[in-house]
Amino acid sequence: MTRDELFENIKRKKSFLCVGLDTDVRKIPQFLLDEDDPIFAFNKRIIDATAHLCVAYKPNLAFYESMGSFGLQAFEKTVAYIQSEYPDQFIIADAKRGDIGNTSDMYARSFFEHLKVDALTVAPYMGSDSVLPFLKYAGRWVILLALTSNAGAVDFQMLPVDGGEEALFERVLRTSTEWGNSDQLMYVVGATKADMLERVRAIVPDAFLLVPGVGSQNGSLEDVARFGLNSQCGLLVNASRSIIYADNTEAFANAAAAEAEALRRQMAEILIKNKLIEA
Amino acid sequence: MTRDELFENIKRKKSFLCVGLDTDVRKIPQFLLDEDDPIFAFNKRIIDATAHLCVAYKPNLAFYESMGSFGLQAFEKTVAYIQSEYPDQFIIADAKRGDIGNTSDMYARSFFEHLKVDALTVAPYMGSDSVLPFLKYAGRWVILLALTSNAGAVDFQMLPVDGGEEALFERVLRTSTEWGNSDQLMYVVGATKADMLERVRAIVPDAFLLVPGVGSQNGSLEDVARFGLNSQCGLLVNASRSIIYADNTEAFANAAAAEAEALRRQMAEILIKNKLIEA
Repeated sequence: MTRDELFENIKRKKSFLCVGLDTDVRKIPQFLLDEDDPIFAFNKRIIDATAHLCVAYKPNLAFYESMGSFGLQAFEKTVAYIQSEYPDQFIIADAKRGDIGNTSDMYARSFFEHLKVDALTVAPYMGSDSVLPFLKYAGRWVILLALTSNAGAVDFQMLPVDGGEEALFERVLRTSTEWGNSDQLMYVVGATKADMLERVRAIVPDAFLLVPGVGSQNGSLEDVARFGLNSQCGLLVNASRSIIYADNTEAFANAAAAEAEALRRQMAEILIKNKLIEA
Repeated sequence: MTRDELFENIKRKKSFLCVGLDTDVRKIPQFLLDEDDPIFAFNKRIIDATAHLCVAYKPNLAFYESMGSFGLQAFEKTVAYIQSEYPDQFIIADAKRGDIGNTSDMYARSFFEHLKVDALTVAPYMGSDSVLPFLKYAGRWVILLALTSNAGAVDFQMLPVDGGEEALFERVLRTSTEWGNSDQLMYVVGATKADMLERVRAIVPDAFLLVPGVGSQNGSLEDVARFGLNSQCGLLVNASRSIIYADNTEAFANAAAAEAEALRRQMAEILIKNKLIEA
């Protein structure tokens, strides 16, 4: 999917919502445990209930891998289901990979050739040759961790580097612009650090940002939009737990849709206010 | 496995070799492709041929994940095989994970409860709460990326931080000592940067270091030992491709053993020279 196509989807759906499929078998409604594949059964219903409200899905690999090869099958089925039923969705494998060149090659093959997801989250710590193998795939995206939404982000990402004012996350952004452009690179920037989005935008004005931390982690959608919006929206705001675990009964999918719709409505207002779509 | 038990294994086997099981279906001998599970069949023979020469195995998850759930099954079978046949081996899942707290929890569950590996490699970029969930498991190890063996390591890991002399990798080491001690934490330090091992040892004198880059990446075992050895050896030197792809015929396992034995013999000399074992 190109950046323009993604923006078209955002305008058409009046939404820049990404639904995080952090599906944990211990948290899904009990009655689903009778299904052959409870994880996939849960995802399928969440997807059917929310696909008209969001532009992207982000399954987090950790949740699937924690169940071994059975979990990975549920992940593969989920990706295939979205691709066949909702081909306009941007699929992000949230895997936070990052390894030496020949290993990143293997990951790229896995996610872009085998699974054919649109994007993969990648950790920057190992530098250029851990990221470049992913950029060889036209139409596929690397979403680089820049400034994450968790408490530990301050430990290293906020450290000033090279004796200057620049923090490590800004150096990561700046260096990555030598590896690729905003047609292939997006960045994770946590909503819990919305004021930092100004510093992010100073370096990557055109890039899409994947913003976790709205919802269960208490980031503010208004702040994210104020500091992060650009002329093509430039934001994919992710919510996971607040949507998919909104309810634990037979009505869970409807409850998820209601939560997603509440966020989408706020997003539509933001898009209108900023003249990216008409009222 | 405790640090003392690992050192006992090193002395008994006169080896601090870790064999990296970076098994790529495109590189294994052709005749194995007739097997039901060629990856596992390859690993099984490599393991049977080398187990008396090494103290650890390190399957790299990327190589298994690139084959989807089928590959993950091969990984699981490999781990189970080592555990049942060679229980004195230290098993490292080289996955380079690192995510927010609740996700790291899932990974910890996956690797330490489900797969029961001894150690997991973890990327430090996301800070404390991405690492701490792994340290809740007694007898299990986090191997934190500090200074990696690839070219891109200079992009961020070598940057001076906080206006001082300290590089990011040193800050990672120093900060991690607040999270756990050398009975739970090891560090990845590439053999291609052996002179940096002095700076590493200044911060974590007692920790075991997992050292990739000897073999195909041309790091020197002598240099690694000179700068990195401590009173309990403190080194696990990994070789992957140079061992497992030493030969591509029916004799591949024997060739792998010969390569492993050549390294082990050098290691025995180093251990003797440094009076860690008797001649």
